[in-house]
Amino acid sequence: MTDLGVGLIGSGFIGKVHALAYRSAPAVFDLPRLPRLEQLADVDAGIAAAAAAAFGFATSTDDWRSLVLNPRVDVVDITTPNHLHEEIAVAAINAGKHVYCEKPLAPNADGARRMRDAAAAGGVHTMVGFNYLKNPITGLAREIIAGGEIGDVYTYRGAHFEDYMHDPDTLVNPWRLRTDAGDGVTSDLGSHAISLARYLIGDIEAVIGHRITVVPERSVAGGATVKVGVPDTVNAHIRFQNGATGTLDASWMAPGHKHTISVEVWGTHGALSFDFERLNELRLYKAGQARGREGFTTILAGPSHPDYAAFIPAPGHQLSFVDLKTIEIRDLLAGLADHAPAPWPDFAEAYEVQRVVDAIIRSDQSGAWVPIADI
Amino acid sequence: MTDLGVGLIGSGFIGKVHALAYRSAPAVFDLPRLPRLEQLADVDAGIAAAAAAAFGFATSTDDWRSLVLNPRVDVVDITTPNHLHEEIAVAAINAGKHVYCEKPLAPNADGARRMRDAAAAGGVHTMVGFNYLKNPITGLAREIIAGGEIGDVYTYRGAHFEDYMHDPDTLVNPWRLRTDAGDGVTSDLGSHAISLARYLIGDIEAVIGHRITVVPERSVAGGATVKVGVPDTVNAHIRFQNGATGTLDASWMAPGHKHTISVEVWGTHGALSFDFERLNELRLYKAGQARGREGFTTILAGPSHPDYAAFIPAPGHQLSFVDLKTIEIRDLLAGLADHAPAPWPDFAEAYEVQRVVDAIIRSDQSGAWVPIADI
Amino acid sequence: MTDLGVGLIGSGFIGKVHALAYRSAPAVFDLPRLPRLEQLADVDAGIAAAAAAAFGFATSTDDWRSLVLNPRVDVVDITTPNHLHEEIAVAAINAGKHVYCEKPLAPNADGARRMRDAAAAGGVHTMVGFNYLKNPITGLAREIIAGGEIGDVYTYRGAHFEDYMHDPDTLVNPWRLRTDAGDGVTSDLGSHAISLARYLIGDIEAVIGHRITVVPERSVAGGATVKVGVPDTVNAHIRFQNGATGTLDASWMAPGHKHTISVEVWGTHGALSFDFERLNELRLYKAGQARGREGFTTILAGPSHPDYAAFIPAPGHQLSFVDLKTIEIRDLLAGLADHAPAPWPDFAEAYEVQRVVDAIIRSDQSGAWVPIADI
Amino acid sequence: MTDLGVGLIGSGFIGKVHALAYRSAPAVFDLPRLPRLEQLADVDAGIAAAAAAAFGFATSTDDWRSLVLNPRVDVVDITTPNHLHEEIAVAAINAGKHVYCEKPLAPNADGARRMRDAAAAGGVHTMVGFNYLKNPITGLAREIIAGGEIGDVYTYRGAHFEDYMHDPDTLVNPWRLRTDAGDGVTSDLGSHAISLARYLIGDIEAVIGHRITVVPERSVAGGATVKVGVPDTVNAHIRFQNGATGTLDASWMAPGHKHTISVEVWGTHGALSFDFERLNELRLYKAGQARGREGFTTILAGPSHPDYAAFIPAPGHQLSFVDLKTIEIRDLLAGLADHAPAPWPDFAEAYEVQRVVDAIIRSDQSGAWVPIADI
Repeated sequence: MTDLGVGLIGSGFIGKVHALAYRSAPAVFDLPRLPRLEQLADVDAGIAAAAAAAFGFATSTDDWRSLVLNPRVDVVDITTPNHLHEEIAVAAINAGKHVYCEKPLAPNADGARRMRDAAAAGGVHTMVGFNYLKNPITGLAREIIAGGEIGDVYTYRGAHFEDYMHDPDTLVNPWRLRTDAGDGVTSDLGSHAISLARYLIGDIEAVIGHRITVVPERSVAGGATVKVGVPDTVNAHIRFQNGATGTLDASWMAPGHKHTISVEVWGTHGALSFDFERLNELRLYKAGQARGREGFTTILAGPSHPDYAAFIPAPGHQLSFVDLKTIEIRDLLAGLADHAPAPWPDFAEAYEVQRVVDAIIRSDQSGAWVPIADI
Repeated sequence: MTDLGVGLIGSGFIGKVHALAYRSAPAVFDLPRLPRLEQLADVDAGIAAAAAAAFGFATSTDDWRSLVLNPRVDVVDITTPNHLHEEIAVAAINAGKHVYCEKPLAPNADGARRMRDAAAAGGVHTMVGFNYLKNPITGLAREIIAGGEIGDVYTYRGAHFEDYMHDPDTLVNPWRLRTDAGDGVTSDLGSHAISLARYLIGDIEAVIGHRITVVPERSVAGGATVKVGVPDTVNAHIRFQNGATGTLDASWMAPGHKHTISVEVWGTHGALSFDFERLNELRLYKAGQARGREGFTTILAGPSHPDYAAFIPAPGHQLSFVDLKTIEIRDLLAGLADHAPAPWPDFAEAYEVQRVVDAIIRSDQSGAWVPIADI
Repeated sequence: MTDLGVGLIGSGFIGKVHALAYRSAPAVFDLPRLPRLEQLADVDAGIAAAAAAAFGFATSTDDWRSLVLNPRVDVVDITTPNHLHEEIAVAAINAGKHVYCEKPLAPNADGARRMRDAAAAGGVHTMVGFNYLKNPITGLAREIIAGGEIGDVYTYRGAHFEDYMHDPDTLVNPWRLRTDAGDGVTSDLGSHAISLARYLIGDIEAVIGHRITVVPERSVAGGATVKVGVPDTVNAHIRFQNGATGTLDASWMAPGHKHTISVEVWGTHGALSFDFERLNELRLYKAGQARGREGFTTILAGPSHPDYAAFIPAPGHQLSFVDLKTIEIRDLLAGLADHAPAPWPDFAEAYEVQRVVDAIIRSDQSGAWVPIADI
Repeated sequence: MTDLGVGLIGSGFIGKVHALAYRSAPAVFDLPRLPRLEQLADVDAGIAAAAAAAFGFATSTDDWRSLVLNPRVDVVDITTPNHLHEEIAVAAINAGKHVYCEKPLAPNADGARRMRDAAAAGGVHTMVGFNYLKNPITGLAREIIAGGEIGDVYTYRGAHFEDYMHDPDTLVNPWRLRTDAGDGVTSDLGSHAISLARYLIGDIEAVIGHRITVVPERSVAGGATVKVGVPDTVNAHIRFQNGATGTLDASWMAPGHKHTISVEVWGTHGALSFDFERLNELRLYKAGQARGREGFTTILAGPSHPDYAAFIPAPGHQLSFVDLKTIEIRDLLAGLADHAPAPWPDFAEAYEVQRVVDAIIRSDQSGAWVPIADI
């Protein structure tokens, strides 16, 4: 077993979570290849050095290009703002490195397609950080659906609501408002919602979307204001290829919602739902329960659900957001072992997610349904 | 104070609830005019007689026309299937009677407009049974919004989900599937959702809707099947005249949902939400709470909320669906007193609700936004 | 079928609820005997007259003794403060009247025993207003336990928490603090908790209690203060005759609790719980569910549960506190029909409840377990 | 800054959690001293070697005594069954090592006192794994209480319920049933409940307890049965030195409860509660809220609560059981730095917890209140 040299680009919130996950994964899981924390890059050399020390990386740099070319780096891990992903990823691919990139993959489907194609041409593996797919509760939902426990699915309702942009005078991550960085909340939170819908139900055939910019101008540090060209809230009706229909909604201006990632699925034999403000719970309703005993059962995540037992053998003791990332990194490392199935979700899957984002934008502009095939 | 002779047409579920409410209202409230339970009509004379005895009506009949013309009847109360409302209501109006009619008022906007116009021409008062508007929790929500407690409202999310049509082999109320009785779930549950949206936020300017018939054929008694021409589920994006946007969703095939009538409202200073599976609760989030103390507050209905104290002086002791109808009938009787404001919601309001139903249908057919003004 | 003349003594909160229930019961249920609202008594003649008019009683009086002797009164309904129950009830029994009395029956077990014995000697029927026994959810719990669905029960946890005495400067019902009216919260709320424990599990064998007076002096109107000689909170460990053990807790100083009447029952095959701040919900856990699908199922009250369907045929539409009283009055009227089983819970049952109250007091004083047989 | 050599004894569930936490702590927190994973001991040499490799320890051994004497080990971390703690800890203390030991510290107060005294005499630091004290939600509760936000506290209700011993034929951790390993659930879960009560409110003055062995015989592997001499459930009334009173309850036979660690605190100005089946939530009720707006506010753990921000800057994203241990290990490492306050809770605190356990046992035997001072 050889280890894998990891080069991490970016040391902000999500970069730190990646670092935590690299450290935990080998103790939690029996890994085919171990991560070796080789180098950390940040635009500020001092920040890079401090983060490398704190996170346990061997070296640091303020030049991501040198990291990409570092021969001891096998996997380039990109946690920069979205609009920088493509240049870095393509450089890494060209240098023969595997690439692990945060979501959303690109500002639009064209960029995502180029990245997908570059990876395919380069023969490297890729993975994108749709971490909510890794939650044991998500795995349980998929198992319930795939096993036919709720029958044929006909309705899907997905939402992702937070409120970190609610205050117009407190601008979090100003780059998220740049139109060249994506489509605001559609890209940031909507992409999570789309990836969950695809993971649980399958390909989406067509959408009609409605994008709303609630706050057209926001204050930035120093008192200046910026015009906002991206939506704060997005609503979409969707139709899956298998005939199911549903809704997808996202907002970063949902007051009081801190981490509402909710899914509800209706089938001919029952229903399930979850909301990741309670990250370790799923509610399941089975049609045909004994008369007078019908109801939703609240299932707490436990060791019989995917990957939970590796952390803790007792149910109800709870996993965290960081733990989801640990599972994701296990999937990355496992997927880079010899003869293993490739890691997933990869750039190809992220491109499919991005096509739905673009279809929502186009349908909002046209006021009509847009087939994903048109993107 | 003179009393009011009530003639009730229909003795099914909702007819019984009306009867209960007439009996309770005088003991709960200090009423300007008392109801006199004069006559009950049902198509079956035996059922009519039995129901009259049970509910306390003086006489019964199997001929609604004689009830309408009964000189001791001042208010005609219609609880028949939807498609029979218009003929009865217009006959009652022509006989100079006030009319209290269950929702939805008519199968479509044309019928509702004729009924509204007939009432206006006849100079009688009308009221429509949108009982959820009468819940003290709804009143509290309106008070919070109108008082600016959550600031300027920009998003409204309304849904009405039940599962009484989930089993394709158990047909509840077959008339609800008739295309001449309305638009299936859009009319039955969607009309409640629309009335709440109008009550809490205001006039709707435009909609785009998506109607889905999940089960195209259903079994009826005897093993035959009927083709279903109306939707089981409806989703709509909406835009209010005041600029707020949102979503309206309804389904009678929502497994596990028994009485989900949920509303969520987002404003510049906070948010509120409720779900009438917990009929006596509202959740309120105020922006700007003390740092580390932010969260939704769960408010239980109590004597400081509209009309609750008339039932019981202690908070948390709960009102029921029947109690909402008691409040509604108080509003009816109060609105028929001399010099009192007319009862509300009246036929004019129900017509506005119906226009939104029709706009959803039309937009589903065209695949594009439909202004309510076009209906 | 002859009707029953009802004489109601007291027109406060609970008197009004009784009046509402008398009016509703005949329309909700198919009753063997109908109530005739004959006379209402209150210490103030004006209040009595106004209440009689509002509630629909034929006559009123300021002299409860004349009501008791009124030949048109068949049932005397007592809703006065506790310490007045005995004198009125015994007078009514001596006049040959059936007696329906609010809980707690008496200030102590001696009084309750005298009332029980008087009723037995007088050959009249009695009933006591432990209304929470009538909730369909309570009936469901009893059905689950009695049917062995959760196996052999070994643990019972009961609590009744409200906060109406939390503010030391706002004195609600000052008579509740009188030591001759009972034992404060033990009598007022604890008696409900005891009656539920007996109803669901059976006879209690022994208790050890802890009574706490949190606020030793309270303000009354005018600024004076009263010394408080009764507990605000009571905690008890209990042992049932069938070997199960458990806890009973009550407080009227439980901040934020408006109507927490909670029960949890553990058995060899599962558990159930409810909390009447959500009056229409029960949670059921069955051991041996499919691996990874274990959890509590939340059951909403519906037409398959006792008595619910008489109000409304649709699940989740909710019953209210007043509706529980309507069921109670159906039980009263049904129990007074010829050849019917006597109404229940009667004075004999209320005496058993009171013995447990007295045992808690005695055990608190002695600091040791007290068998109920010693009371 | 010098690092600290860690020797871990035990590689089961909680040993693995310790290992995870040592790996995460340096990346999460800015630590004054870094842990060096020096040696892992387990009774089976093969298991020890495998665990050392998986968890990242440099060496392994099947002889805890050699680990204790290993000069590269500065801190001995004990995760063995309870009855083995004392011998190991005393040996480590005698070798001049700091000791970090899992709870409960000892089978009884005598053992705990000896351990406390040995540590004091040896001049080393100690810490005990009452990890729930480290939850940001617990810290928030303490901050609310200490800051007077709910006024003077007069009632405390604590419980710890799980169901891992519910099935009499599936014996989890048979050593927990040994009477020389402690008092069954009183030691295992009750000690957590006691530590929380002491942390949030203060010293306990007296208790009266009730211990119940629900299943007197249990099956073990091979079909034999063991007699059970320890309680499955324990209930206690408590009185704090500051005058507050309350209840403590624990059971490992609470069907459906997977991780109920619940606390409710009542004060003159409000109340708070939490239940660690939802590890990241606290409910706060403030008396004197605006009329009609009163209710419990549900607060999600977030970056303004103690230690949360070190993991993730976004509220509602959730910490896990393992994360609590990471905080605990930060406290250990910080407390071993020069001039730092000693780590806490130490053996002295754990001895105080154990005294309450012993007082509950003694009071159950005597049937009377037992002052903690008598232990």
